[in-house]
Amino acid sequence: MSFRIEKDTMGEVKVPADKLWGAQTERSRNNFKIGHSASMPLEVIYGFAYLKKAAAFTNCELGVLPIEKRDLIAQVCDEILEGKHDDQFPLVIWQTGSGTQSNMNVNEVIANRAHQLAGKVIGEGEKTIQPNDDVNKSQSSNDTFPTGMHIAAYKKIVEVTIPGVRQLRDTLKKKSEAFKDVVKIGRTHLMDATPLTLGQEISGYVAQLDHGIKALENTLPHLSELALGGTAVGTGLNTPKGYDKRVAEYIAKFTNLPFITAPNKFEALAAHDALVETHGALKQLAVSLNKIANDIRMMASGPRSGIGEIIIPANEPGSSIMPGKVNPTQCEAMTMVCAQVIGNDVTVSVGGTQGHYELNVFKPVMAANVLQSAQLIGDACVSFDVNCAIGIEPNYTIIKELLNNSLMLVTALNTKIGYYKAAEIANTAHKNGTTLKEEAINLGYVTAEEYDDWVRPEDMVGSMK
Amino acid sequence: MSFRIEKDTMGEVKVPADKLWGAQTERSRNNFKIGHSASMPLEVIYGFAYLKKAAAFTNCELGVLPIEKRDLIAQVCDEILEGKHDDQFPLVIWQTGSGTQSNMNVNEVIANRAHQLAGKVIGEGEKTIQPNDDVNKSQSSNDTFPTGMHIAAYKKIVEVTIPGVRQLRDTLKKKSEAFKDVVKIGRTHLMDATPLTLGQEISGYVAQLDHGIKALENTLPHLSELALGGTAVGTGLNTPKGYDKRVAEYIAKFTNLPFITAPNKFEALAAHDALVETHGALKQLAVSLNKIANDIRMMASGPRSGIGEIIIPANEPGSSIMPGKVNPTQCEAMTMVCAQVIGNDVTVSVGGTQGHYELNVFKPVMAANVLQSAQLIGDACVSFDVNCAIGIEPNYTIIKELLNNSLMLVTALNTKIGYYKAAEIANTAHKNGTTLKEEAINLGYVTAEEYDDWVRPEDMVGSMK
Amino acid sequence: MSFRIEKDTMGEVKVPADKLWGAQTERSRNNFKIGHSASMPLEVIYGFAYLKKAAAFTNCELGVLPIEKRDLIAQVCDEILEGKHDDQFPLVIWQTGSGTQSNMNVNEVIANRAHQLAGKVIGEGEKTIQPNDDVNKSQSSNDTFPTGMHIAAYKKIVEVTIPGVRQLRDTLKKKSEAFKDVVKIGRTHLMDATPLTLGQEISGYVAQLDHGIKALENTLPHLSELALGGTAVGTGLNTPKGYDKRVAEYIAKFTNLPFITAPNKFEALAAHDALVETHGALKQLAVSLNKIANDIRMMASGPRSGIGEIIIPANEPGSSIMPGKVNPTQCEAMTMVCAQVIGNDVTVSVGGTQGHYELNVFKPVMAANVLQSAQLIGDACVSFDVNCAIGIEPNYTIIKELLNNSLMLVTALNTKIGYYKAAEIANTAHKNGTTLKEEAINLGYVTAEEYDDWVRPEDMVGSMK
Amino acid sequence: MSFRIEKDTMGEVKVPADKLWGAQTERSRNNFKIGHSASMPLEVIYGFAYLKKAAAFTNCELGVLPIEKRDLIAQVCDEILEGKHDDQFPLVIWQTGSGTQSNMNVNEVIANRAHQLAGKVIGEGEKTIQPNDDVNKSQSSNDTFPTGMHIAAYKKIVEVTIPGVRQLRDTLKKKSEAFKDVVKIGRTHLMDATPLTLGQEISGYVAQLDHGIKALENTLPHLSELALGGTAVGTGLNTPKGYDKRVAEYIAKFTNLPFITAPNKFEALAAHDALVETHGALKQLAVSLNKIANDIRMMASGPRSGIGEIIIPANEPGSSIMPGKVNPTQCEAMTMVCAQVIGNDVTVSVGGTQGHYELNVFKPVMAANVLQSAQLIGDACVSFDVNCAIGIEPNYTIIKELLNNSLMLVTALNTKIGYYKAAEIANTAHKNGTTLKEEAINLGYVTAEEYDDWVRPEDMVGSMK
Repeated sequence: MSFRIEKDTMGEVKVPADKLWGAQTERSRNNFKIGHSASMPLEVIYGFAYLKKAAAFTNCELGVLPIEKRDLIAQVCDEILEGKHDDQFPLVIWQTGSGTQSNMNVNEVIANRAHQLAGKVIGEGEKTIQPNDDVNKSQSSNDTFPTGMHIAAYKKIVEVTIPGVRQLRDTLKKKSEAFKDVVKIGRTHLMDATPLTLGQEISGYVAQLDHGIKALENTLPHLSELALGGTAVGTGLNTPKGYDKRVAEYIAKFTNLPFITAPNKFEALAAHDALVETHGALKQLAVSLNKIANDIRMMASGPRSGIGEIIIPANEPGSSIMPGKVNPTQCEAMTMVCAQVIGNDVTVSVGGTQGHYELNVFKPVMAANVLQSAQLIGDACVSFDVNCAIGIEPNYTIIKELLNNSLMLVTALNTKIGYYKAAEIANTAHKNGTTLKEEAINLGYVTAEEYDDWVRPEDMVGSMK
Repeated sequence: MSFRIEKDTMGEVKVPADKLWGAQTERSRNNFKIGHSASMPLEVIYGFAYLKKAAAFTNCELGVLPIEKRDLIAQVCDEILEGKHDDQFPLVIWQTGSGTQSNMNVNEVIANRAHQLAGKVIGEGEKTIQPNDDVNKSQSSNDTFPTGMHIAAYKKIVEVTIPGVRQLRDTLKKKSEAFKDVVKIGRTHLMDATPLTLGQEISGYVAQLDHGIKALENTLPHLSELALGGTAVGTGLNTPKGYDKRVAEYIAKFTNLPFITAPNKFEALAAHDALVETHGALKQLAVSLNKIANDIRMMASGPRSGIGEIIIPANEPGSSIMPGKVNPTQCEAMTMVCAQVIGNDVTVSVGGTQGHYELNVFKPVMAANVLQSAQLIGDACVSFDVNCAIGIEPNYTIIKELLNNSLMLVTALNTKIGYYKAAEIANTAHKNGTTLKEEAINLGYVTAEEYDDWVRPEDMVGSMK
Repeated sequence: MSFRIEKDTMGEVKVPADKLWGAQTERSRNNFKIGHSASMPLEVIYGFAYLKKAAAFTNCELGVLPIEKRDLIAQVCDEILEGKHDDQFPLVIWQTGSGTQSNMNVNEVIANRAHQLAGKVIGEGEKTIQPNDDVNKSQSSNDTFPTGMHIAAYKKIVEVTIPGVRQLRDTLKKKSEAFKDVVKIGRTHLMDATPLTLGQEISGYVAQLDHGIKALENTLPHLSELALGGTAVGTGLNTPKGYDKRVAEYIAKFTNLPFITAPNKFEALAAHDALVETHGALKQLAVSLNKIANDIRMMASGPRSGIGEIIIPANEPGSSIMPGKVNPTQCEAMTMVCAQVIGNDVTVSVGGTQGHYELNVFKPVMAANVLQSAQLIGDACVSFDVNCAIGIEPNYTIIKELLNNSLMLVTALNTKIGYYKAAEIANTAHKNGTTLKEEAINLGYVTAEEYDDWVRPEDMVGSMK
Repeated sequence: MSFRIEKDTMGEVKVPADKLWGAQTERSRNNFKIGHSASMPLEVIYGFAYLKKAAAFTNCELGVLPIEKRDLIAQVCDEILEGKHDDQFPLVIWQTGSGTQSNMNVNEVIANRAHQLAGKVIGEGEKTIQPNDDVNKSQSSNDTFPTGMHIAAYKKIVEVTIPGVRQLRDTLKKKSEAFKDVVKIGRTHLMDATPLTLGQEISGYVAQLDHGIKALENTLPHLSELALGGTAVGTGLNTPKGYDKRVAEYIAKFTNLPFITAPNKFEALAAHDALVETHGALKQLAVSLNKIANDIRMMASGPRSGIGEIIIPANEPGSSIMPGKVNPTQCEAMTMVCAQVIGNDVTVSVGGTQGHYELNVFKPVMAANVLQSAQLIGDACVSFDVNCAIGIEPNYTIIKELLNNSLMLVTALNTKIGYYKAAEIANTAHKNGTTLKEEAINLGYVTAEEYDDWVRPEDMVGSMK
């Protein structure tokens, strides 16, 4: 491999000749060989691209950066956002906790690429654009990294997570309506209970996801607050007047999302409660989705020796040894995602507790976990929707059979003969393996006509409408 | 000990003669000897008292309960809310996951106490009021317990948690204003950084708590939704028409809080995402408070060999062996509370994931953890406020000394001489143990006058205002 | 209420006249009104009683405490261990993180009670025994509290947790043997799979608990290491030569447990990885127990519309609204305990991460969580054993019916006709709602005789024996 | 792109012509678009390669597989282990929870590659080796996946984690010895305390890591138990006699690690407590490492306005805005890793709780988290060692200055003049800003000679030796 020499304030570093990055990126590659390379999410890099471009425009507008430099910087940022330089960001999550090295990675790539765009050869001549003095002008890692991660997280939430959850929610809503008259046995404590309709059951899932989306949306205003303009410790040292508001406006414009400058920059650097808040809502969705997926696989269990009330699509052979087996694999993928998100929530919380003085230095790990959870929930909802939810159908035969067997229909008699006599009927039928009706009549508490009149499953599901 | 005989549908049970509870409570005491007795939070019992009274009023109004029974039930509920029967609720959290036994505990105590109020002797004669048919009328454990826990949690949040956090927030706000001109060194990565004022630093804490209170308030609408009226599985079986809305109105009236009937009762029984959501916000507050308390103890560390920039009240001798030692004990209590809340959050999440079919059966453990966290955060904030925050004072001597020593004041020169030359000055001063000014002049980058003009800590803190 | 005046190095404090505690306990009561009073576990106080007695004996033996003082101290410690002074320890978990105030609470109670035993009146005359100079001699809170919590945790593990788990394990072992020939359908992915015996299924639970007990026992050596003798920072300042080893021997003698002095006192004060380690094993047990309890309730579900393969004891009426309902309440109590323990594990971990320099100041919260988890697991296992496991019986009718229906018996044909043809048989039977045998013959892959010879559930469970 | 047709029991699937995988892999790619592709850890694939080869040898030895097939299978497995087919395993973690699809991915790749090795063209002619009937012979996904993940985890622990932790531990041990006479101030509650040596302080870290390694090693026996031979539900259906023991012996031979067949296969399929146990120990190490890294960055803080007692290597420019800044970046990478591991522990626990009946279907997520944590801890320890620990040096000037300032040296006087008088001296010096010696003499409690004799820091660190 051939190398060129790059310099920073500590001296010279050999960098692979075909790479755009500079000295500090290379130092970081050597100093942090932890896990696989390039684990820093590209979404964060893209967040940086937006903000570097916005900073260049703002700096130019406020008179501290020439327009030629602005345009070169902006051009490289656009290239990055088009995915043209994805392989120029080799750093890992497990670097400095401020993400300084990823900030410098971006600064260096922009500076070197701008040099090329200016018709020069990297490593030859004075840099057309300086990584620190130009690309990073009016910025610090301490305000850029949190800005980049807020942009990345916000975009992921609104572009992947919420649409994914909503897609699944809409399918369930349709199922809930389609099955609104399918009366089935209810189950509490996993035990037979009074009836409800399959549509009602599924409407509970819809309500969960509606609440979850609401909770997630509630966190967006905090996430929309950008640290940029705080620079090193939140005071905005070395920024021109009006910079913070203006740069947020540019970011809002470039991303087409409602970002604003954080009213308090000290909080925005020293704490990442916005990520904690957002991930809390992602975790709530994981809790809901786990419940839903778990219910669906239990109701679909069988085909002969389980519950079998619903049928879900058979997408792949289920077993390498048991021929003909079909499994609720989408439920399993979903619940594994939920387990991951619940764990990630602890990681984000632990990271959040440990801001010290003016800077929280768990930024990369917090950002990476929020982005992973947001992506996984969105993707898993779509996968679950397309490959499972959309195909859910009732198994009417089984539903009817299980419903009619149930001893809990006796509950309808409470208001007629009282809880104690009703219990006696149910207990006797259970002991004797008989039907409620037989025992109700035998015990002399009701007549056959009364029984048929009073114990009607379809009448037991309706008062909530 | 003397006993009387109580009965339920399973038969007879011996109950201590001096207790108001009945057969099912006694069965539960015997069947669940797990941890210390009476661990079920009294707040949940009080929540039940509100709802039993509201149910009696609603049942009466809707024509299914005589007014005499309503008034007897209401009278006992009022007694319970006055704390007169606190020792009648001996059950543990670790019972059935629907809380059925605590529902029956309340039903039994109300029935027996009503019998007394009606001038009868418990255990003699027909019960004036039946636990199941009267007290529990139009109800199920499955909708009462979640209603009781929502009432308990909501009250705790608005009566203890939010006022406690706000009290601390207000004190910090005042401190932030009082110290707005106290310029001190900033620290990032625990290392010396550019200056800010102590007021700015504390303003970050205020912003954290403002966001936390907001996040907590965002969860209240979900928590205000009451399951009551769903009965066994959410369908509202055995409730009179209009019951659910009316009973929520009564609860709102009796508690003076904005409770409403849950739009979807299936969700309200089968999932407890409302508790997950609320606890998520409590956990966020714990994350924030941990950051704040940790910073304060680091800044107060010393008195001779630490940071020592602030002075906090000395409330007690700090050591049983080291004479004269004073410790940041309120910070320690606070951070221990935070650790508890972060763990409780996982408990609540795990409980939330495991609703099965029509019923989540982790109700008691979820309720207990939410209540504990809400109480601890509220109490800890008040304790921290009164015994620590209110007494925070700057140690001006140390603040000034540490500020002036700092090499990071060099950052002010970036915009004058560029990042690289500024770095050279700082590095040289660090290596030689000299001052920035000396080396800045030695290196020939600035004159003494320029240095004094450009490097002014008080000018480095201001652009954010 | 009447008061007396007590003093410490900070001055005078009014203490309730009828209480044995002194100034520092009273200060702590006033300064830490967080959660309910007296939350500091009594087990920790008893741990202190052992160590204070042991310290007195060691100090006396090494010539720094008169025998009269030793005996007075020991006498009070014995009274404490007999439970005579349980109401003299009113402090909360949420105090100083070193537990200094509980150490002083013990010192003060011992000193004042010794004064009484010496025939004096508390508050009159020079104290017969000084809390700091006598009771706390050769000690610091920093080494006593971790010693007290190790004693408490070790005792709880060996007296409550392990016996409880083992009791349940032994019952399951017996069930596993009793049901070793009950062939039933297996289930993977909740779906019908090849058969196994109920005994084999339960043997898996036994193996889980055996591994869990082993894992817990593996943590005892670390827990047996006592910090005592390290005093303030681990150096053992102000202790006589040989003190640390000797005092551990006394503690081992008094508790009859194999305690030793920690080889490294710095670790023993500054980190509480021993608690993290022990709680990790408790959490593993929670994971196992959750799996077991969950399986049992699924297998017992029904009675008419669930799985219903096993019958568990009906201990109480299951529903306040559904007459005759019986629920798997012990499974629910158990899984709630598991959720709590999994959350507590995070609390203990978070506390463990935050030792600072020479002292971890999350001692009380870590100790309280370990003790709670250890108690709950032990108690829940006994409750589950006595009220559920011991009564588990197969429902032979259902087991046989579900077994014979299964399409997965086709797996036995893999080695005869290959996976693909076997799959064709199963899929055809599933589609047509027919039996495997019918379709196997129809498809011409086997004869009726071959089928009966090859597909024998009882032969499909045996190769592992 | 060109395609070929592959078949499974559900029908035909188009597969990219240049890939070795078959129908089921392709179905999985289409059905599980969750997160980035190929997230299933390669280590698990390699674990499969070992076991597939071992199964082929065992099947051959036991007479159920021809030697030609054995050798073809083995040859492909060796190629996989050499990394030649890394790009043939495109599946994600978020698939079926049994990992069936990754098992089939391996089966398909082996079968197709064997076809090539046999001189044939993939997709042409009868497959030389059948994925299910040959490669998967005597196996099920249900026993292969857990076997593969145990192999992967065990190897990672002994090849990466333990060597990494031990390397750091050995460096710290050397530092502990090198600095055994460097007397410095101790700190408890972050406040000045009695002195100790820097070597003693670091010896506590060594003890933590020794305990952590021990705890991790304690989990290896459980991890060495292999499920292989249990097949579908643990009974070993369709395996030849003696297969399970023999196949484990082959795996032990091929990996050179002490694997054995699991004594109880039901536990080995239905529960993954072994992973829970191992990850518990990884989490304990994370707790320890967090404490160590945090202490080091606090002690290294400054350079002018922090603690500054130790100097750590300056590896890169610390700030993009503050010239000359150097940060404790290795500590930050380490503590971020710790946060991740603590969260991963919850994921593994949640996954572990949810085995259902005969199969835990959280295998991929549990395996992936264990492998990530094991890798990160090992890597982070090496990185921390090489780039930080190895270069730790005391700042003797600061250590001496901070030591001599300390008021806590007064503790040495306890045994001479009692705790109360000692406290008076310290409090007075603190109030007056004077030295202990001055006030000790002023108060008349000691003479100057006595003070110099009694208060000698170097004598206060020694009694533990």
